[in-house]
Amino acid sequence: MGRRRQFDADGKPAFLFDLDGTLVDSVYQHVLAWREALEEAGIELAVWRIHRRIGMSGGLFMNALLREIGRHVSAEAAARLQQMHRQAYLRQVRQVRPLPGARELLAYLSRVGVPWAIATSGRLETARPALDTLGLGPEVPVITRDQVQRAKPDPDLFLAAAARLRVEIRASIVVGDSVWDLLAARRAGALGVGLLSGGYGPDELERAGAYRSWCAGCGMTESSKPTPASFTV
Amino acid sequence: MGRRRQFDADGKPAFLFDLDGTLVDSVYQHVLAWREALEEAGIELAVWRIHRRIGMSGGLFMNALLREIGRHVSAEAAARLQQMHRQAYLRQVRQVRPLPGARELLAYLSRVGVPWAIATSGRLETARPALDTLGLGPEVPVITRDQVQRAKPDPDLFLAAAARLRVEIRASIVVGDSVWDLLAARRAGALGVGLLSGGYGPDELERAGAYRSWCAGCGMTESSKPTPASFTV
Repeated sequence: MGRRRQFDADGKPAFLFDLDGTLVDSVYQHVLAWREALEEAGIELAVWRIHRRIGMSGGLFMNALLREIGRHVSAEAAARLQQMHRQAYLRQVRQVRPLPGARELLAYLSRVGVPWAIATSGRLETARPALDTLGLGPEVPVITRDQVQRAKPDPDLFLAAAARLRVEIRASIVVGDSVWDLLAARRAGALGVGLLSGGYGPDELERAGAYRSWCAGCGMTESSKPTPASFTV
Repeated sequence: MGRRRQFDADGKPAFLFDLDGTLVDSVYQHVLAWREALEEAGIELAVWRIHRRIGMSGGLFMNALLREIGRHVSAEAAARLQQMHRQAYLRQVRQVRPLPGARELLAYLSRVGVPWAIATSGRLETARPALDTLGLGPEVPVITRDQVQRAKPDPDLFLAAAARLRVEIRASIVVGDSVWDLLAARRAGALGVGLLSGGYGPDELERAGAYRSWCAGCGMTESSKPTPASFTV
């Protein structure tokens, strides 16, 4: 085992999936839940700024947003805000659906024996309802923010997911919808694929290191590349 | 008046503003209101696809989305869907706030005598609450979808707004947050400026014809160009 393997024993890569915005259509609910929590705390922030931070670790998210508006909050206030976001999100979680093709893709990978795992910046408490909508039980390898020291854009979540699958991170393909997934993928040494389902444009995803950007639900399992018409005109 | 004027009598340009996502922070509420209406009608669609169509005329919006999923609905069903969207949006309209700097910018333009108007693909019924949050009364020139034959990305709304101000469209600067504003601006012959507040990235806005893309609320009245950190890292 002296030399680095590019692929696992069967020569197949592993897939490491982000959850929110990649497998389940929950980004916009998270955005408005953060907005509700921030406004309850007296912090007014344009919604698009919240959108652009979704997928980061909650702690980094708070720091980044508050720095942008030149505010500081104590660690206690930040923890309280995160709790308010979780409550607001869980109130609307029944509106969250799997993204088109996600269940089929996971079932296909399992059928053909390609290892896959899920790695999310969220905590298990908020991830569980999303995993339920995907019909995924406790046997599925899921790494949440509870299990690592640093969430995205740090590489820890994807490194832990690859370790759980016993695959080389360099043989792994990270699939995510936000620039934070792609930055984390690059730092981990994995190949990043960006999905448009989080609301970022393809240029933003590719600038963050996506090797490809795809249109989920335009036929992800068929690997059909989206035409420009799918996302711009 | 045989030759085309580049500027009005004072040599100052006029400003033609989009409303939703440009002056008021309402895009994400519109997105989830459309999602609610579509789901009530049994049409499941990933939320990001709805986001990418916001700002188009409601009729074009419906056609484009339904074509993407290969469905057809009758004119009556489409009208009913638009009505359901309006109702769902109006239920959450009290969460809608002016975008940072918008009121100050409009007040500044009025103070220095630069003509401005608002041109929206929405109908007056949904625009009115947004205009109220901006503190704008009936004296402000507002062109809504009710007053033109075709909404964005057709140029009609901006052409009508310039006519209302009695300025040349070529002396006008269109400010909007969506690719539909910028496509309409280009077709009208105006200069388009894109704002990031609608959730599109700067590349998407510039590809649609934005002469510049700015970060509203990073200091719109100060014309400070956003650093890449404002929207990507």
